[in-house]
Amino acid sequence: MTDYEKFLSVTGRHLSESAIRRMGTVVAKATDLVSFAAGYPDSRLFPWNDFREIANELLTGTDGTVLQYGPTRGFKPLLEATLEVLARRGITADLSELMITSGSQQGIDLVARVLISPGDVVLVELPAYTGGISAFKNAQAELVGVRQNSDGIDLEDLDAVLLRERAAGRRVHLLYLVPNFQNPTGLLLSLEKRRRLVEWAERRDVLIIEDDPYGVLYFDDVATEAETQPIRAMDPYGRVIYLSTYSKTLAPGFRVGWMVSPALLADRFETAKQSIDLTSGILDQRVVHLAIRRGLLDSLAPRLRELYRRKRDIMEQSIRQALGDLLTWPAPRGGFFLWATLPPGQNDQELLARALEAQLVFVIGSAFYVDGTGHDKIRLSFSAPTEERIVEGVKRLATVLQPALK
Amino acid sequence: MTDYEKFLSVTGRHLSESAIRRMGTVVAKATDLVSFAAGYPDSRLFPWNDFREIANELLTGTDGTVLQYGPTRGFKPLLEATLEVLARRGITADLSELMITSGSQQGIDLVARVLISPGDVVLVELPAYTGGISAFKNAQAELVGVRQNSDGIDLEDLDAVLLRERAAGRRVHLLYLVPNFQNPTGLLLSLEKRRRLVEWAERRDVLIIEDDPYGVLYFDDVATEAETQPIRAMDPYGRVIYLSTYSKTLAPGFRVGWMVSPALLADRFETAKQSIDLTSGILDQRVVHLAIRRGLLDSLAPRLRELYRRKRDIMEQSIRQALGDLLTWPAPRGGFFLWATLPPGQNDQELLARALEAQLVFVIGSAFYVDGTGHDKIRLSFSAPTEERIVEGVKRLATVLQPALK
Repeated sequence: MTDYEKFLSVTGRHLSESAIRRMGTVVAKATDLVSFAAGYPDSRLFPWNDFREIANELLTGTDGTVLQYGPTRGFKPLLEATLEVLARRGITADLSELMITSGSQQGIDLVARVLISPGDVVLVELPAYTGGISAFKNAQAELVGVRQNSDGIDLEDLDAVLLRERAAGRRVHLLYLVPNFQNPTGLLLSLEKRRRLVEWAERRDVLIIEDDPYGVLYFDDVATEAETQPIRAMDPYGRVIYLSTYSKTLAPGFRVGWMVSPALLADRFETAKQSIDLTSGILDQRVVHLAIRRGLLDSLAPRLRELYRRKRDIMEQSIRQALGDLLTWPAPRGGFFLWATLPPGQNDQELLARALEAQLVFVIGSAFYVDGTGHDKIRLSFSAPTEERIVEGVKRLATVLQPALK
Repeated sequence: MTDYEKFLSVTGRHLSESAIRRMGTVVAKATDLVSFAAGYPDSRLFPWNDFREIANELLTGTDGTVLQYGPTRGFKPLLEATLEVLARRGITADLSELMITSGSQQGIDLVARVLISPGDVVLVELPAYTGGISAFKNAQAELVGVRQNSDGIDLEDLDAVLLRERAAGRRVHLLYLVPNFQNPTGLLLSLEKRRRLVEWAERRDVLIIEDDPYGVLYFDDVATEAETQPIRAMDPYGRVIYLSTYSKTLAPGFRVGWMVSPALLADRFETAKQSIDLTSGILDQRVVHLAIRRGLLDSLAPRLRELYRRKRDIMEQSIRQALGDLLTWPAPRGGFFLWATLPPGQNDQELLARALEAQLVFVIGSAFYVDGTGHDKIRLSFSAPTEERIVEGVKRLATVLQPALK
């Protein structure tokens, strides 16, 4: 019997698995499960008819490049359309700074590979997106957490942590964060803090990795478009690498995301991507390009905001009804997630074990913390289930939570 | 002005660019260029009508999962269909050993990440596929070349190189090779050598990375299906990681490849892929799955073999006509490439510079050699251009080659 362990690289021996993706495997096997786990968009709002028409148009065979290999940077008309999408978010960029990625997850991974050497420190929020955590860990980064307040990352703690880590002799040159409707907390970073972050990055010689999948999904009753302005839009110094995606606005199955970075770094990311997957899916890029050109992003966005806001309402109301004030959470102002604090004495992992028996799944809070804490939190995603399933799921949550309190 | 160089990781500072992908950029800009550079399949044989019908069927919106996130391992019915494809190639595997990858390039990159630590030696053929070279280099491997004979890798040189490198204290545990119609040489590894390679790998405790994109594209006049039997099909020890793709048989734009590896390693590759891109394109996987279920692989394969064989004939005849015996090459027995040796005194880079002025592009031989040699070779790909363009391209080659000889 061959011993395969010994063939593993340093990376291979220490691979970090995403808690959310692990959930996905559990979900796939169950039959009557209610899933508050994965942050999937609601597939009923995908513009199916448009996609079908576009695919029909593209697959006539008159243009062979539709299914051929393509440039690593991306399909040029899609890059150009994406520059316009960026402009509407207040971001001025040009083609030398832009690359299409296989989902924004690939953007994070490219940053990790091209900018992180083993032992480098990456600063992340407490809590932080698990897919970011595992990509950086797999590049053998040391992840160090920074506290958040209700208006996003705590700038005093941020600077203190940076100085402490540098004083300890570590290389600290990256801050990774999700400013809009953060995964998992749903928090919105204040505009004032965004401005101060850019100044801080310039002063402390740091790059900010701004991951923005949810920016356009603000809830009109408690947030405005202006409040979601990307940090990259306020950056005169070239300190921000901006990642985003069409996964939450069109559909994730296409795996079309993008990254904006200073041109020199964009060249490096492109070279790295060459040996990673040559190019992102070509038909996918073509479909997304025509979807944007048909105005689907603009027509869909208000409907998506409305849908997810209504689902948030249903989840909040159901929890209050079924559980009174046993759970507390910061009001989600956009995005997909409700970040709940458990009653004293409750543990996220024990609760999940009981929930799975009741055919309910969510993500444990501790999965998002790089400092070992978070066992009093759970992330409940309201984006994918129907309204009826949200109500049903909250009922199940109540049945597993309440007996435990007696 | 921010100095971005200093932010780069060790990997980021030493990224290796694929010579072929660089060609792609040149190609994209020219107008009347004949390209013998990129190994693209001929898009006129993509089954456009079937793909359009399948896309129509999938995009009705009745099955939301068609455009949703999916499992990292791949769409299960596609995995099952791929096991049947493998069985027809003589490979017995099960789901625990199989993963869908974003093209087979991602398979190479996953191997590099999960199995290569900086400084490890990877043994490769002289010459070897550039995409393999750059993926391994980007994992900071030391690449050491092994000679080839007309029937593939030289087993004596292989063992001598392994022992020499190990004696020098290096970790050597991977051999990467393309046994069927190798890129760039078009060579076919003999069955006898395949059998002996497996024994060698077991004896020397090495894993073989078998990259097989071209196996089904044998030319009936000079090769048989039996001669393309994968090494993995002859491996009782679990020594082979097998990579392949639907890019050359259906279409590369879908980016659907796969890897077969021992189950323990397959789990590691899956975990690595989680943080790299979460999942390969879902619609792509669904289309490819239905294409296989409709029998398209089987109906297309003979037509593809016939088409590429005819193109090979045209290229060989044109060269003989235009250049007599100035160029020599091993007869391609399948695949996409003619690997030409230049007349004495000619240099691949100088010839390419002149060719570009004449609107012709090919890949320089030295790009495929990890030992700095190969300047007397060029790779001419006959797969993508029409028959007329092959003739035209060879004429241009003659115009730039012949004056240089006077």
